[in-house]
Amino acid sequence: MKYSPGVLSVLPIFYVGWADSVLSPSEMQLIRNQIQKIPNLSVDDKNLLFSWTDQKNPPSAETFESWLVAIKSYTPEINIEKRKNLVQLGIEMAQKSSSASERHIWDAPLVHQSIEALEHTLGLDNSLSQQSFYNAIAPDNVVETIEKAGFDTSKMQAMLDGPLVDLKNRTKKLIMDEFFRIPTDLRDKDLLRLKILEQCKALAEQGFGAHTFPEVYGGKNSPAGSTAIFETLAMGNLSLLIKYGVQFGLFGGAVYSLGTEKHHQKYLEALGYMKLAGCFAMTETGHGSNVRDLETTATYNASNRSLTIHSPTLASGKEYIGNALHSKMAAVFCQLIVNNENHGIHAVLVPLRNENHEELPGVTVKDNGYKMGLNGVDNGRIWFDNVEVPVENLLNKYGDINEDGVYSSPIENPSKRFFTMLGALVGGRVSVALGSNTAAKKSLDIAISYALKRRQFKTLSEENETLILDYPTHQERLFPLVAKSYVLTFALERMREKFEESLQLDDKREVEALAAGLKSYASWHATHTIQECREACGGKGYLAENELSDLKADTDIFTTFEGDNHVLLQLVAKSILTDFKQEFNDGGYSAIVRHVLKRVSSEYVDRNPFSARNTDAAHLLNAEFHLQALRYREQKLLFSLSDRMRNFIKKRMNPNDIFLRTQTHMVTLAMAHIERYIFECSNDFLNKQKDSPEKKALELMQQIFALDAIYRDRGWYLENDFLNGDKSKAIRKVLAKCYRQVRPNAQSFVKAFGIPEVLRNAEIVKPSVSKAIA
Amino acid sequence: MKYSPGVLSVLPIFYVGWADSVLSPSEMQLIRNQIQKIPNLSVDDKNLLFSWTDQKNPPSAETFESWLVAIKSYTPEINIEKRKNLVQLGIEMAQKSSSASERHIWDAPLVHQSIEALEHTLGLDNSLSQQSFYNAIAPDNVVETIEKAGFDTSKMQAMLDGPLVDLKNRTKKLIMDEFFRIPTDLRDKDLLRLKILEQCKALAEQGFGAHTFPEVYGGKNSPAGSTAIFETLAMGNLSLLIKYGVQFGLFGGAVYSLGTEKHHQKYLEALGYMKLAGCFAMTETGHGSNVRDLETTATYNASNRSLTIHSPTLASGKEYIGNALHSKMAAVFCQLIVNNENHGIHAVLVPLRNENHEELPGVTVKDNGYKMGLNGVDNGRIWFDNVEVPVENLLNKYGDINEDGVYSSPIENPSKRFFTMLGALVGGRVSVALGSNTAAKKSLDIAISYALKRRQFKTLSEENETLILDYPTHQERLFPLVAKSYVLTFALERMREKFEESLQLDDKREVEALAAGLKSYASWHATHTIQECREACGGKGYLAENELSDLKADTDIFTTFEGDNHVLLQLVAKSILTDFKQEFNDGGYSAIVRHVLKRVSSEYVDRNPFSARNTDAAHLLNAEFHLQALRYREQKLLFSLSDRMRNFIKKRMNPNDIFLRTQTHMVTLAMAHIERYIFECSNDFLNKQKDSPEKKALELMQQIFALDAIYRDRGWYLENDFLNGDKSKAIRKVLAKCYRQVRPNAQSFVKAFGIPEVLRNAEIVKPSVSKAIA
Repeated sequence: MKYSPGVLSVLPIFYVGWADSVLSPSEMQLIRNQIQKIPNLSVDDKNLLFSWTDQKNPPSAETFESWLVAIKSYTPEINIEKRKNLVQLGIEMAQKSSSASERHIWDAPLVHQSIEALEHTLGLDNSLSQQSFYNAIAPDNVVETIEKAGFDTSKMQAMLDGPLVDLKNRTKKLIMDEFFRIPTDLRDKDLLRLKILEQCKALAEQGFGAHTFPEVYGGKNSPAGSTAIFETLAMGNLSLLIKYGVQFGLFGGAVYSLGTEKHHQKYLEALGYMKLAGCFAMTETGHGSNVRDLETTATYNASNRSLTIHSPTLASGKEYIGNALHSKMAAVFCQLIVNNENHGIHAVLVPLRNENHEELPGVTVKDNGYKMGLNGVDNGRIWFDNVEVPVENLLNKYGDINEDGVYSSPIENPSKRFFTMLGALVGGRVSVALGSNTAAKKSLDIAISYALKRRQFKTLSEENETLILDYPTHQERLFPLVAKSYVLTFALERMREKFEESLQLDDKREVEALAAGLKSYASWHATHTIQECREACGGKGYLAENELSDLKADTDIFTTFEGDNHVLLQLVAKSILTDFKQEFNDGGYSAIVRHVLKRVSSEYVDRNPFSARNTDAAHLLNAEFHLQALRYREQKLLFSLSDRMRNFIKKRMNPNDIFLRTQTHMVTLAMAHIERYIFECSNDFLNKQKDSPEKKALELMQQIFALDAIYRDRGWYLENDFLNGDKSKAIRKVLAKCYRQVRPNAQSFVKAFGIPEVLRNAEIVKPSVSKAIA
Repeated sequence: MKYSPGVLSVLPIFYVGWADSVLSPSEMQLIRNQIQKIPNLSVDDKNLLFSWTDQKNPPSAETFESWLVAIKSYTPEINIEKRKNLVQLGIEMAQKSSSASERHIWDAPLVHQSIEALEHTLGLDNSLSQQSFYNAIAPDNVVETIEKAGFDTSKMQAMLDGPLVDLKNRTKKLIMDEFFRIPTDLRDKDLLRLKILEQCKALAEQGFGAHTFPEVYGGKNSPAGSTAIFETLAMGNLSLLIKYGVQFGLFGGAVYSLGTEKHHQKYLEALGYMKLAGCFAMTETGHGSNVRDLETTATYNASNRSLTIHSPTLASGKEYIGNALHSKMAAVFCQLIVNNENHGIHAVLVPLRNENHEELPGVTVKDNGYKMGLNGVDNGRIWFDNVEVPVENLLNKYGDINEDGVYSSPIENPSKRFFTMLGALVGGRVSVALGSNTAAKKSLDIAISYALKRRQFKTLSEENETLILDYPTHQERLFPLVAKSYVLTFALERMREKFEESLQLDDKREVEALAAGLKSYASWHATHTIQECREACGGKGYLAENELSDLKADTDIFTTFEGDNHVLLQLVAKSILTDFKQEFNDGGYSAIVRHVLKRVSSEYVDRNPFSARNTDAAHLLNAEFHLQALRYREQKLLFSLSDRMRNFIKKRMNPNDIFLRTQTHMVTLAMAHIERYIFECSNDFLNKQKDSPEKKALELMQQIFALDAIYRDRGWYLENDFLNGDKSKAIRKVLAKCYRQVRPNAQSFVKAFGIPEVLRNAEIVKPSVSKAIA
């Protein structure tokens, strides 16, 4: 069948609309309204077009194919490199099929505008949709050739890099140096540790170690800057990352945040430039997440104003202590006992070794041996057998012993003192959250780059095997993870701002909850993403030369250290239940119970009954819908949790039992809370941007993040009637459509992560090797 | 308030019923009916009990507490070690509160029977429920002390071990020998490989290598036995496992299954006793999953009746070949070309090295280097540069070249020939599926045993910190995985039977689909389980000495090798779509399209509209419900997939595009299919057992498996109105209840996996160390 110029002018739009099969009745009505407004269409044209917009009686297979034939008859003349949008293409087709005398009527601005309005109605007015159209009509030869970015990767990278870009670039430049390469086949832990130690010293010599500290100690007075260094170091060797974190962040952080002027003067510069190697001895074999019940003691001896550091049992030995084998000194967390009174956890600087690096009397250090990963970090166990140190070694910002042997503290309440001390160390969690996302990005960069080179099975054409990224299963595995890394970036940047602000605040509860939540979310994201990328690269992903295996092994502990994720999320949930008024790190429940009883039920936000059934693509892609969905889930979970707790309280269940009964509910609430928060951060960022192709692309990432989050949890949404079954299915379709839009820009999306090629060292993505596997 | 003897007699049952809060209105009605039948109850008693069975007006908090007080007032006299069931307990309370003259009326059998009927109505008539009752009324001190198994672990182990128990025990006994220990800190790949080579030879010398082969070649003529050896070896070092699989299963399997008498006579005994080390050179750098398009060629030279083996490109080198560095010979898969005609993939035995272990001319072997794990296996790449071998080296069961240089095959159709050859190698997938589950079991044994020693935070009592297995989040993480390993065992045993039967069949399509599906399911189960166990053991799980890190690293490739899971599942889906009539391993689509068009829509099984709302615990725990749910999902997915495909066919979409569009749907269908199959195998096994505590415990495992599968996929079930929201929530509650029943038997459940302590070598579960961490 031959179509009239009028029909041809909108055929590309019709084709894409039906090809994706997600047009709803209300969209159909909108299409009809727009068609009415297009000049140049005859009555016959309109009637024919209207006949195709009846969803109950959709175009037949023959009709559909005749569209395709009509469109394809014009495509040979289209220069794919100079890609036209759907409107231009339609008008060109209309002109070509018009008589010479009528051709000019298609030049009228009103014609363009009205067809553009139709395109807009269908949400197809962006470069990504145009590319997906080209893929749809000519899958055999177009998909692969489109690797021109729909956006500018350097502008995109600038958005992701954020305000600390200079420091990040400086860090990258340093570790790109040959000096920081580690051969893949160097697996001996002792040799690795020596190498990492050297490298860590080199970082320190460049001033990267002291960055947090005041200028007078050789620093830049910038804790936020240190987190940016940490974030960037995660692009390189992860043992170096952790060594850096242990020496400067943990050991340095303890001296800086828990010590006073005298300690700063004596140690900060030395440790910041790694003249003094130290470790952070908090965790014990018997106590990891439960810091408050550590067993190591520091007992005050009035006679000579000293402290005796002692590990009473085998299980009270300090465990997994990074830098334990290289350190001269440890910041030991222990129960401070003065005159038989226990004043709770304090940190004391305890020398471990003499100048010849021999263990001092009473100190026993044992190597933790090989670990799943991070074998360049010297983790060990440390026991103290009545080791005496002068009382000056007490890091005394929050507790001191005067000349008369009397303990005093600026914070009277021992509980509050403990929380304040832990709060001073929040930078660790902030850093791990940031580093986790970097590791996830690097693995995605490798897996996506490989999937754009690797072919397997002839499915799309008879000539070439198909690029594995053209398989929908592969897209479904990787693209939501790319989107998560994107969106997470903005939340992590917000956290860094909050962290910087909090340095001036006494009350750090908000940033503590935030860091705990984001550390959990980001570290699981890294674990899951790297695993998926490893599998997505098949056997190649298993070889050490392709980096994913070490990325996996090195980051696996991120979900555990700086606090086990399950434990941290329960603390986050308690914060939410008490409107962030409870002390963070408080394991107790009575304060919660009081809050929960006070909490009124009316806060419950009702869902919109109409929205549950709205399956329009425009609605599903709208940030307002995402925000509503993510907020609703958090608030409903909070409401139902409070409600269950109140019921248990009424049954006189004791608070501990209540918490056991509701533990999984709490973890679910905390994850919903943090996911909503992440989305809001991204959305706020986006709303501040001017329109641009980069903004469009970010919007796509955010849409995938939100829809994937909702879809993954659709069980909950359906249970709670927030979605109905049709809407849930429509989300699945819209997601698949989004993935097709990502596909032509996949390389650009990961390139904008800004990981230098020399650091993304995997053999499989090197150009020379690519040829061999193509 | 003081209760009458009549009320006391049923109070334990009431308490448990309400404590779990899952009583539905229909259950309430059943309770009323049962109460009517109990003698000895006065009218007042009945009225009071009825007043407590009105779900709209449930017992007040005060009432609930008064029950607890009443029950607890009797518990001091109850000997917990000699635990009574709820009926006995109620009657004992009734007797104690009766006057001496009336005490005897509680001895009447009818009284017992009627109260037992009430207990039965609530599904509480089993030892597991009784234990959970004791936990409920006295959580402070009872939970931990109950570690007496509710079942006999050796009887349970016998059920899991199945018919090949003797061979399994023999294998265990051998690898328990000191000779098979490998020090944790041995990480150098070259030293590891030597050690594993020695160990593999020792296995061979004991006859474990030749097990598959006929007696005349020193074997037992038992391929199924070989899979049991493989399954059991997975309890020990996994590099040895894979070395064993490569040498005897892959290399040996190729010679045995693709070769003929002359090859058997020449090689089988030598390779089975590892006098001849060989490798299986199938995968190429450029072709992993797509075996059909391998590039290596074997070209026939008529002049001297030889074959020239050649790798035309860098990417056609054989990749990841296990045993590549130790082998003298390789079974090379290549395109066989005779007189310029390509007869498709065949295997040829190609000598790699001379007696001095030097590479022969034209052979290049390159070490694959370090891998994520399995560093005791020497994987390498192999290229052939015009290597000539006599034509006798062609493994000629399915294709031969006669003296006149004419190719012939017992299978005319080249495509069918290819499928038949691959089908002959199905034992590899069977073995990997079995080994995966063993590895998962071992990690669960470690994580659960640790969780029964490790304490953290004082939540249950003020004296001791709580065992981490008493945390519901911990139960929720580990118990469904234990259940999966249990249920999977019976499906894998069934697969082994089918495999043995298939050895006599020409048509192996059924067992191929089964092995592909179960290999995918089991290997993902292992990957996921070991990861969860690693995290559940915190920092300890990260240390090499605790085995989980190596378990993780060594098994991670199981999802990839013997066929990538995503690819295999698509083959499974194609099999289902064609009623297993399509050739397995066929990547083409036209046959499918034909089948799909023939398939009638009426096969669609309707759901039961009443069932969607039934939230009775008894219904939710019933195997009929589980079967219905799992079957419904599979059939609905099959129906909707066929339907979508038909629609695309009507739109004249080409078959390749159709498959891309429906690829994720196919993977989902295949997983649903295999999960239903697994459940049925377990259920069939269970139905054959006589009543016993072990059967009860297996039932619990099966219930958790099914409910967890349904609950994880509740999004789909809700979308499709198979469940409503209330039912989905009820499943969550019933699952939590099931976990509480598992808890007191957790140690027994993992002990029955039968992993000898000397093989489960993790430091954290050794008794001496446990004391240190307790």
